[in-house]
Order: sequence, then C-alpha cells, then structure tokens
Amino acid sequence: MNASGSIRCRIAQIEVLPGRPSENTGHIIKLIRSAVADGMDMIVFPEMAVPGYLIGDEWEYASFLRECERCNEEIRRASAGITVVFGSVAVDRSRKNEDGRVRKYNALFFAENERFIGPRNGLYPFVIKALAPNYREFDESRHFCDLRKLAMEERKSVADFLEPVPSRLGLLGAVLCEDAWDADYAVSPLAELSKKGAVLMINCSSSPFTLDKNSKRERIYSTHASRYGKPLLYVNNIGIQNNGKTVFTFDGSSCVYDARGRRVAACPAFEESELSVDIPLEPASPTWGRPIPSRPDDISSVYKAIIFGTERFMKLCGVSRVCVGISGGIDSSVVACLYRRILAPENLLLLNMPSRYNSPTTRTLARDLAERLGCLYAEIPIEDSVRFTISQIDGLCCKSLDGRLKEKLSLTVLARENIQARDRGARVLAAVASAFGGVFTCNGNKSELAVGYATMYGDVAGYLANIADLWKMEVYELGRHINTSVYEEPVIPQGCFTLTPSAELSEAQNVDEGKGDPIIYPYHDLLFKSWVESWDRVSPEEILEWYAAGELETRLGYKGSIADILPTSAAFVADLERWWNLYQGMAVAKRIQAPPVLAVKRRAFGFDKRESLMGPRYTMRYLELKKKLLGADKPVSSR
Amino acid sequence: MNASGSIRCRIAQIEVLPGRPSENTGHIIKLIRSAVADGMDMIVFPEMAVPGYLIGDEWEYASFLRECERCNEEIRRASAGITVVFGSVAVDRSRKNEDGRVRKYNALFFAENERFIGPRNGLYPFVIKALAPNYREFDESRHFCDLRKLAMEERKSVADFLEPVPSRLGLLGAVLCEDAWDADYAVSPLAELSKKGAVLMINCSSSPFTLDKNSKRERIYSTHASRYGKPLLYVNNIGIQNNGKTVFTFDGSSCVYDARGRRVAACPAFEESELSVDIPLEPASPTWGRPIPSRPDDISSVYKAIIFGTERFMKLCGVSRVCVGISGGIDSSVVACLYRRILAPENLLLLNMPSRYNSPTTRTLARDLAERLGCLYAEIPIEDSVRFTISQIDGLCCKSLDGRLKEKLSLTVLARENIQARDRGARVLAAVASAFGGVFTCNGNKSELAVGYATMYGDVAGYLANIADLWKMEVYELGRHINTSVYEEPVIPQGCFTLTPSAELSEAQNVDEGKGDPIIYPYHDLLFKSWVESWDRVSPEEILEWYAAGELETRLGYKGSIADILPTSAAFVADLERWWNLYQGMAVAKRIQAPPVLAVKRRAFGFDKRESLMGPRYTMRYLELKKKLLGADKPVSSR
Repeated sequence: MNASGSIRCRIAQIEVLPGRPSENTGHIIKLIRSAVADGMDMIVFPEMAVPGYLIGDEWEYASFLRECERCNEEIRRASAGITVVFGSVAVDRSRKNEDGRVRKYNALFFAENERFIGPRNGLYPFVIKALAPNYREFDESRHFCDLRKLAMEERKSVADFLEPVPSRLGLLGAVLCEDAWDADYAVSPLAELSKKGAVLMINCSSSPFTLDKNSKRERIYSTHASRYGKPLLYVNNIGIQNNGKTVFTFDGSSCVYDARGRRVAACPAFEESELSVDIPLEPASPTWGRPIPSRPDDISSVYKAIIFGTERFMKLCGVSRVCVGISGGIDSSVVACLYRRILAPENLLLLNMPSRYNSPTTRTLARDLAERLGCLYAEIPIEDSVRFTISQIDGLCCKSLDGRLKEKLSLTVLARENIQARDRGARVLAAVASAFGGVFTCNGNKSELAVGYATMYGDVAGYLANIADLWKMEVYELGRHINTSVYEEPVIPQGCFTLTPSAELSEAQNVDEGKGDPIIYPYHDLLFKSWVESWDRVSPEEILEWYAAGELETRLGYKGSIADILPTSAAFVADLERWWNLYQGMAVAKRIQAPPVLAVKRRAFGFDKRESLMGPRYTMRYLELKKKLLGADKPVSSR
Repeated sequence: MNASGSIRCRIAQIEVLPGRPSENTGHIIKLIRSAVADGMDMIVFPEMAVPGYLIGDEWEYASFLRECERCNEEIRRASAGITVVFGSVAVDRSRKNEDGRVRKYNALFFAENERFIGPRNGLYPFVIKALAPNYREFDESRHFCDLRKLAMEERKSVADFLEPVPSRLGLLGAVLCEDAWDADYAVSPLAELSKKGAVLMINCSSSPFTLDKNSKRERIYSTHASRYGKPLLYVNNIGIQNNGKTVFTFDGSSCVYDARGRRVAACPAFEESELSVDIPLEPASPTWGRPIPSRPDDISSVYKAIIFGTERFMKLCGVSRVCVGISGGIDSSVVACLYRRILAPENLLLLNMPSRYNSPTTRTLARDLAERLGCLYAEIPIEDSVRFTISQIDGLCCKSLDGRLKEKLSLTVLARENIQARDRGARVLAAVASAFGGVFTCNGNKSELAVGYATMYGDVAGYLANIADLWKMEVYELGRHINTSVYEEPVIPQGCFTLTPSAELSEAQNVDEGKGDPIIYPYHDLLFKSWVESWDRVSPEEILEWYAAGELETRLGYKGSIADILPTSAAFVADLERWWNLYQGMAVAKRIQAPPVLAVKRRAFGFDKRESLMGPRYTMRYLELKKKLLGADKPVSSR
C-alpha cells in the first residue's frame, strides 16, 4: 500500500496462447517490466496465464509440466519491486493425483521481491483453486486436485486452508474463477477470506464467452463486493482455446468493483488491455470513480465473438485464405460476409456449384452477394460429375468371384441427393480450397446440426463451423445485423431473407415453387432449442404434456399457433417423433464427424454438450401420454 | 444365510443397453424371477445396470432420471424372497449437484422383501460410490456427487459413511467399481467396510475392456480378498457404450474370490452369463472350490474385443450390410476378414477402386482376398472421375465480378493425391454403401491416425474405425492371428504381409519398385506409441535425451539400431520433428472429424485421450538439447 492508502494496481488482460508457456511467459515478463517502470504496486494476470486452460490432456506430459514450472520461476525472478499475481499449474511430485499421475493444482501465484508467498497457514507458497468445475466444457477434476480434496487428505476442513495471502500490500483475498461462483457448492471461498481479514478480493479467471454470461457475473460479483464491503478485481484472459470438437472464445471483460459493488473500471471485450487503477483501501472510502453501466449482450456480442473466434482460429491453423461455397441461401451468405470482414477480397473465394436443381433465383442471389463483397468468385457446375457417379453405381452388378452371389445396386432419391452434396463438399470444395492455398468452411447452423439435416462429407465438412451454435432464426438475425450495422450498405441481398430455405437437391425442393426444407421455422428452432439448451433438458415427454395441456406455445415461446402448422394430434406426434428420432439417431453419428463448432452460447454441440450414440429413445411416461392422446401405444416410426 | 452357513448367490453378468432403463429393467426382473425359482438367496447385477454408464450428458434430462427412478421401484417390488443388488442412479431433489442441477448419485441398491436397505447410519437407503474416476473415458464428477463430497457437505469424515449394509444375509460390504481401485485415493472403502464387520465383499462394476486390465484387476482384487480375509464378488456388465468419438467394449469377466484371494468361479468374457455360487461364510471355511488359472491377454483377446464391439456397434446403428474398400494392403484385408466373421457373404461387399497408380500386385491381392472370403466383390475405377475433377479445377480462373481481381488455380502433387483418396471415400464408397443399403468402413490404423497420414473425407471416413486403436505392427499381428487361428485356412494372401505399405497415390509410391509410405515400421510405431500410450507421456524432449544418451532403442523397445534408418543426428532430428509436427498439427484436425474409434487398449484417440488443436509445440529444454546436439537453435521445420 502506498502513502495515500491505496494500491496502484494494473490488470493485465492478456491473450493466453493455450499450450505455449514460454510464449505466454515472455509476454507476461514484458508487461511486468513496464508496470514496474510505471510505478505500479501490483500487476494481476488471469488464471492459467502461463499454460493455458483448455488444453486437453496436455497436462499428462511431464515435459510440459517442467516447462510450466520453469516459466513460473522466470516470472518469480522478474518480481523485484512489484507484486505479481498470476495463474499457472503447480506440481507436487511428492503426492499423487487420483489418476495415479503426479499431483497438479490449478494455482494462483503471488511473487514479491523474487519470492513466492502463499496463504497464511497454507501447505504451499501458492493459492489452490477450491471449487473445480466439471460441467459444460470443463474437466477440471480430470487433471487437478482441488483444495477440498487436499483438505480431506490432510483431515482438515477446507475452511482451514482458505486464508488470505499476507502480501506486502496487505491481506489479499485471492481466488480462482469458479471459487466466486459458489452458489451450488458447500463452501464459499470469498466469504471465508473476507471473514479472515482480506482487504482486497481478487478473482483471476479463464472464463469463456457465453451469451448473457457477463450479466450473470455482474450480479454475482457485484453482490460479493457489496456483501463483504471489499473491492473486487476480476481478471480474465482473451483468446481462443478449444477441446477439439468445440472452440471457445475468451472475451476478457476484466473489471473492478468498488466496496459497494459498483463496477468502476472495465477492460474492453475481446481486446488485449491493461487497466491501471488506484484502489483505496481506507474504510473511509468504500467507493470511488463513476460506475460504468453494463450493457446486456445482444446480436452484436454474438457477431463480435464469432469474428474474433474465427480470426483467431484461422491464425491457430495457419490459415490466410478461405473458400466459401455459396448457394444463395442465408447461411452461406452470412458466412461469406463474416469472412469478408477478416480477409482482403483476394484471399476470399466464393464458389457457386449449381446442378440442374438450382433455380436461377438462388444462382442470381449467390452472384449478387459475390458482386457486393467484391472478392474472388467462380462457378463450378456439378451436373456432369454427379451424372457420372450415378452411371458408375446405379445398376452396377456385384458378384462373388465364385459366381454364387449376384446383386445389382440401385440408388434411391435420397442417395442421389447425398451424392450431390458430397460432390460439392468433398470433391469440389476440398480440391478448390487446396488449389487456392486455403481451407473451406462449413456453413451449417445449429438447427441442421441438431437433427442432422445435412450430408456427411458433403455440407458436414470444412475446417470450422463458425455459425453452428446459432439456430436458423439467429442466423437471420445475424444477417440483418450484418446488413444494418456492419457494412456501410446491405451486402446480403434481400432475397436471401425471404427465400424459402431449401437444399435444392431435387425437384421436390424447388424454391421458385415455394418448396424447400422440411424444417418449419421458427417452431422447430424453438422445439430443438428446448432439447438442447434448456437447463433441465426437455424431452418428448414434457413436450407432449405441454401440448396436451395446451401450453406448448407458451412454454417454447412460440408466438403462433401450433395447430396452424400441425393441425391434428397425430400430425403433431408424427412430427415430434420424426425429429426426435433424427436428433438422437443419425444426427449424433453426423456430429461425431462434424467440423469443430465455434461456441458462442450455452451447450454448443461437441465438448460442451456431450453425447453418446445410443439411438432414439422414449420414456414409458411418454408412451403412456401418447396412448392417452392418440389411442396408439407405439411410436409412429421407430427410427 | 441358509442353514449350511453359506449364501446361495447368483452373479448376473448382463448386457446393459446404455440409455435404455426400461429394456434393462425388463431383463433384470426376468432374471430375478428365475433366481427366485432356483432358490437363490441373492442375485447381484452390475453397476449402473438400469441406466447404462457412458451415456454422455443424458443425465441432464429430467425425464430420463424419472424413468430410472421408476425402474428402480419396479425392481424393488420384484424382490420378494430374494436379496437383489443392482447399480442405478439415485436422485435427491432436495439437494443440488455442483453444476446447479438436481443431486445425483452413482448408487448401489439392495432390495429385500420389497424394501430398499442402505448402509448402517447412512443418509439414504442405498450405497453411494465413494471414489469417482475422472480419467480416460470417465467423467464421473461431471454428473455425480460422490460420498466424499457428501461427507464434506455433512461436515463428517467419509469413513463415517462407509458402513456395511445390514442385509438379512449378514453384513455386506458393497462398493462400486473404482472404490476397489483405491491405491491413489486418500481413503480405502473396502478396508473400512472390512473393519466394520462385513462378512462378504461385493464390487459391482461397469468396467470397459482394456488390453491387460484384467491381469491388473486380478492382482488388486485378489489382494483385497486375502488381506481382509473375506470372499469378494466382482460383477461387471457386457455390451458396448460410447462417448461419441470412442466406443468401449465391456467384457464382463465377472468372478468370485475366496477369502484367501483365490479366484474360484468366473464368467466368460463378452457373453451374457449367470454364475451361481454357494459362498461359505463360516470362518472355518475361508476357501472352497478349485482356483481358476487366469490367462494374460494376448492378440486373441484383442480379436475377441474387436469382433464383439463391431457386431454390437452395427446392431446399435441398425447396420446389417457393410461395404469395405479393399486396396490389397494389410489394413483393409484385416477389416474385411473381421466383417466376414460377423456377416453372411451376401451382406458384405468388397470394393476395389483402382487408379493408374495401383499396381497389378495389389489389385491381384485384393481380388484374391475377395475370392477367399467368398463375398460380393466389385471394381470401380476412379481414373475418369479424378481426371474430370482435375480438369475442372486445375487452371480454373477465379475473378471478382468487378473484374479487378483474377487468379488461376493450380493443383499440387499432394492435392492430386488427396483428390484420389476423396474420390474413393466420399464419392464411390459412400454412394455404393447407400445403394447397397449399408455403411462403409474406415480401415485406418493407429499409426496413420496418430500422424494424420490419411485424407479427410477420403480414407478418414466411414461409420466406424474398428482397427484404429492398433498400431500397424499390431494390425499385422492380428492378420496373422486371423490366418492361423480364426479361419480354417489362411484368408489373407501372404503378399499382404510382405508388401511395402503404400497409399499408391503417385508414381513415387510404386510398390513394385519397393516404394511406399514414409512411415518406417516398427520404429515409428514405437515412437508414436511413446507419445500416445506411455503413462507420463513422452515428448521430443525425452526422445532427444535418450537419443543423445544412446538409450533410445532400449527405452522404446526397438530391436534394431536407429542409426541404420536415420544415420545422422540431423536426419534423426528432422524425422522426429516431421512427425511431431504432424502429430500435434494437422493430425489433430483430422482426428476431430474422424469416425468413431473402437477402443481396445489404453488411450484410444477421441474421448479417452483428449486433445486440443494447438499446433506443434517444443519445450525450451528440447531446443537446448537440440542445439547441443546439432549446433542449431531452431526447429528444422516449423509446421
């Protein structure tokens, strides 16, 4: 604490590169040096600032752990004249984790005068995360021993170990991320630390962006600060980290709450940023500065997250040129516009791949879009190659070589549709992308991914699915946002918004005759959303109960009347089972091989919402409800 | 206990269908009735016998939990005249899990005379799993509150809750799966239960098959039984369960240990089985029966697991016809032979898809194999379609529609190779499989998957990759086993074993000139294995240390001399970095979209070995070692 009774503190909202401790440490040390030069008392970095956080099973490499420990030491040696707070992994080779590997902690280090200092009465010179999240994308207990398990091992209560850190600046109540989200745990770390005399609370996090999460955090953190009457620092990283199937963005949005719980200083979202604040610790000045109003998330937050995540994912993959297949529909149009914000026109190639089933309407829309975006464009028809494939396979006679078995192959309408989709994806787009020196995109949305309304190795292909966490209606909304607020004038042709959504793979999907996909928007969007995103997830059992009670529209938030689209109970049930069968059946198989999804909301497919391939399933209660409703006792269709 | 002082006990090694509580319950109740009819005192089912175990986030559906509870009640009502022990989920709606959802326990139920009985002094009428595994494929803390957390919540010690169940048959010391694998935990449930007077120990498990795991279990369980001087029942399910990317087989292998730790009764592996044993509980008879010798796993165990897993996965997917692309190489030959053991010849279609680069040698081998297997066979050349694709793309001029930008595309040699692979996978095989009314297989092995030596949407495609947990040398071994011990006479032509492994996608891979893949077997197999399967996983840092110390051959178990294949340090390092760059780079991107892998060993790719896409990385210590070795300080190639 300086003479004026305040701490000159700098929040370092850095970009953390997952799995790259030495790069991160180089960056951290540079920022420490400049903080010293600027006369700061303290600089605070995010959780897991050295190793990164979502790095799969990288924690099992002994060499990776040694590298992290070496980096921790380098940072310690850089702490002359300043208090450095940073998150990293801590290793204790004298103990084991429950998987039998070496003991690892998700730790918060305090380095002062080239020494690490830990909490009072602690076993280690670092703070150990007490609450380990094991939900959504988090697997913390897989790799780290939390403070509760350590306490159990020591036959003590976890509260015994929740002590402030006796820094030269005063007693600091420091915790990691989840430790502040304590509502559902048996212990509240911040309450303990406050009770034990912490003068300032610090929460270092590595917390991915999720639509509407910041509003919830605002409420929780503000309440912590005001309840305990202590200022609270929230320090989060930016960047992207992934778990293979799912890519998460980190928005930073670090901030400071005064002792009355008002947010008085904040870093911008999705930008590296250093925020310097003088935190008065005298009880006489519980508040300072002007509160910063918080704005709830909206479509512009989603847009920002997708642009940021896509740009960073490209960088991670070493991608600088992108090829987008454009059909004239809203999904590919939105994807093309997103990439045009990231790439110069000569590095973006839009490709239209018409067959006999593509109407002049959509072909013109695709061309219009390409014209407005000013980037490279080409047309590669798939008509001849599809015809060739059909001629090679339809009617082909397979035999056993002893002549005993014979079978003539024939292709159904659905098989012919899938041939077209794969011709576009795996034959044309993949080869064009490689000739272009780049990658191609997956343009699928969450509605299609939910029920597998797409072809494997066809439109379920590409290096990244960056709008696959958005329901179709959200894609439209993003498209409108792009037209009104991103580009100077509308780039997505109006026709893309009014067109009947259609795969255009057969005569039956002729958009000019108003025919198209079997998914009915927005009703099915809302139905699928209830299965995937609602907290206690909804199944056909609840849907049927609500339908029978006449409250389904209200429950789903559907503005129209379901009877207008599905006039009878039989039609309603048949539709429900059709999509549920796909959602739990073929769609799971497709998602297993789908491209990585850029997550922006709750329960993105992949590693956030985990699933097993088990086939469609109905509860006994569902079958009873259905029997009551229809007088039938079996699912209408079994698969 | 009956008059003779023994318990007539039946072990029900059932197949558990994941996510299907009512089907499992129907099966369980049938077996209870027949056990009653047979005069049994007790029948014991596996862990999670009602809901299944590896079922992703299915636990979040409220309707699924209600269904399980209803099934638990049905089983309770069927327990008149017998003690029924079964694993299921238990729900307490008055408490929360740490994710904020309803409290769930991985529970073991004891039903007697239509009542549930729990441990002495317990909070619930069921046993709660104390040790929750969070490694490999297990995510137990994601969904279940373990006994340790409950004890902490109740501010008691976990030992306070570890009490035997006071059954009418005596004090039973019952635990779930991991509770017996206690070496790395702070508490030993079986030791507690034994101390507290349990006369018989029961371990109900849902434990997937892993090569060599049964030998380890044998040691651990036998030691438990002899140390505590109590008989021990081990009851495990059979079947398959998956977590999307990875499919696990469950082998059952349930058995009984006497009070001296001798295995005296055992169920067969991978078969539903009921085992009835009279367990004497008088201290005077600590042992009975004849010990059953245990046989260590070998290639026949792997064969059995793959056949079982493949057959069950087909059933799960509703697959009854399969198409295998055969090249004449060992991988596709082995896969074809495996399917021929499951399918009648008219339901198996082998397809050879030659291009100009396929030698008469491999084409003949493929044909020979098809002849020996007697199933359907066809040849579909890819020459014309590949030529057409190249003509459409190579030289294509892309322009912006305002005429300002122009670029002519051209295809590299590698791009042309990938076009061939995708033509086979996504164009031919996918369409033929659908015309055949079936699926097509992925024939990749673990070596290729590790370094991504395969083409996305080409050979990285198919409904299941059933040999993708085997290194190339293990595939050869499996092939030899198939030839010598599975079929009556060798079905895989000898040439498949002696042929240079080659993708045959260019002149440079001409097998008749002894040219082929860049992977050098068995050295690279052993190198990749050290990165993937070794316990504290090995990275280039250790490899270089061992190389410099002249101990790499010993460390990897390589019989030859590495200097014979990589004569200089520079060549060695270049090779090491080439493969490491692929392993951590492109191969991760390929694995994200790869088909589900059938796991048979430790650390199958997917959900067992989890990974993030982060690009190739080297530690500082590696770079220092390399500098010392070569005098250079940068990786030879950066990506």
